[in-house]
Amino acid sequence: MKQNYKLTLEYDGTRYSGWQAQANARTVMGDLIGSAQDFFQTGVEVMGAGRTDAGVHAAAQVAHLRVTPRELHTPERILGELNRRLPHDIAVLDVQLASSRFHARRDAIARVYTYQIATRKTAFSKKFVWWVKEPLDVTRMSEAAAKLRGRHDFECFRAEDPSKERESTVVVVDSADIEEQDGMIVFRIEASHYLWRMVRRIVGTLVKIGLQQISPGDFDRLLNARCGGNLDVASWTAPASGLFLSEVKYPPGL
Amino acid sequence: MKQNYKLTLEYDGTRYSGWQAQANARTVMGDLIGSAQDFFQTGVEVMGAGRTDAGVHAAAQVAHLRVTPRELHTPERILGELNRRLPHDIAVLDVQLASSRFHARRDAIARVYTYQIATRKTAFSKKFVWWVKEPLDVTRMSEAAAKLRGRHDFECFRAEDPSKERESTVVVVDSADIEEQDGMIVFRIEASHYLWRMVRRIVGTLVKIGLQQISPGDFDRLLNARCGGNLDVASWTAPASGLFLSEVKYPPGL
Repeated sequence: MKQNYKLTLEYDGTRYSGWQAQANARTVMGDLIGSAQDFFQTGVEVMGAGRTDAGVHAAAQVAHLRVTPRELHTPERILGELNRRLPHDIAVLDVQLASSRFHARRDAIARVYTYQIATRKTAFSKKFVWWVKEPLDVTRMSEAAAKLRGRHDFECFRAEDPSKERESTVVVVDSADIEEQDGMIVFRIEASHYLWRMVRRIVGTLVKIGLQQISPGDFDRLLNARCGGNLDVASWTAPASGLFLSEVKYPPGL
Repeated sequence: MKQNYKLTLEYDGTRYSGWQAQANARTVMGDLIGSAQDFFQTGVEVMGAGRTDAGVHAAAQVAHLRVTPRELHTPERILGELNRRLPHDIAVLDVQLASSRFHARRDAIARVYTYQIATRKTAFSKKFVWWVKEPLDVTRMSEAAAKLRGRHDFECFRAEDPSKERESTVVVVDSADIEEQDGMIVFRIEASHYLWRMVRRIVGTLVKIGLQQISPGDFDRLLNARCGGNLDVASWTAPASGLFLSEVKYPPGL
């Protein structure tokens, strides 16, 4: 009988060409499928809630895994067997038996991303931060981040996604804020969905504001989809290393 | 004029043959001396508070750096120039001008070590933990850890140090405890000094207790310097990866 499992995973994305399986590249989903097929000894179908890009990490990616196993295993057993087979930088945190209709991507109602900016050299977390060496005005950055909340046309903050035609560039941001502690500035954003590269371009723009290289008025213009001129957002894209998919939210009961 | 600086450093010890400079091996102190001599363009004298072993990390190692600079630099400038030259896994956190008599090793009154045991697979921190896959009884481990406080003969927990003859094996432990949260068990110990490999052998023994492979009575025997029999402490030595020199304490004013 076909089973559907809800998996929660963390991964260090440094060595991977992103989440989504693709030919001729090592991906997190590709490694997960390989490990699952090795354990179940049959084909599996996997879909993740968020398509993290190359080098982006996850603290709690959610995926569904559909399989018709030859024998039934407890979720604990599946968790242990997958972790044993997966490489050291991918860890399954939780496995739950889900309804046959549960779909990790379509059922998700919100995705939370966090971005870590280090304001000092860090010996332990180089792979997980963007180290900005010049002084940042965090108050200016926080004030700009607060403006992200609500419905905006994020045209200026997206990269063209060749896989999607005529996608709407309007996104409703549920929350966005910045906190600083112990030499680390953490940006957190929650929305139902995102445009390609949107979070990294927002972070890059917030850093420009923190460096006093663009004005709050410039940021307002970008949030009103008035791109171009001296505001070259694409060139400010923050590096993948600091970005984490940190939570995926579902309606109660899923 | 000769200057004496107090440096606080963090490092990921994975790639290094320990702190202490030695011929034909890469060490943290060796890299620090190299970077400092490159900046000051003259010889420097460096001494650390703790000689961390190969693979052991530091969250706050303290060292003194003595130099007769050609020109005076602010501590901020020295911090920046050293960090620029040091590899990514060594970071200077703080530089302060110290009294000419300040000696990082002799003046230290206590050293705090922490040890991280992961009870689940972790994608981000493999280099910084010991992953114990079997279930651990943390209450049993905590009860044993509490017995470490006070004056004991740690003969059973030390490795022979060829550099020291007839060293006393009595050590006064100021505090020792275990905390668990989010799949991580953290052991913390504070003492004025330690015997070679002592912390890693204590941790290895605590894990044997947590696995129910030795009894609390066995631990009492070891703490009373009654070694041997089936209690092969050396073979239980915990891996270097989980160990951090996390604080060095000095009298007020140093």
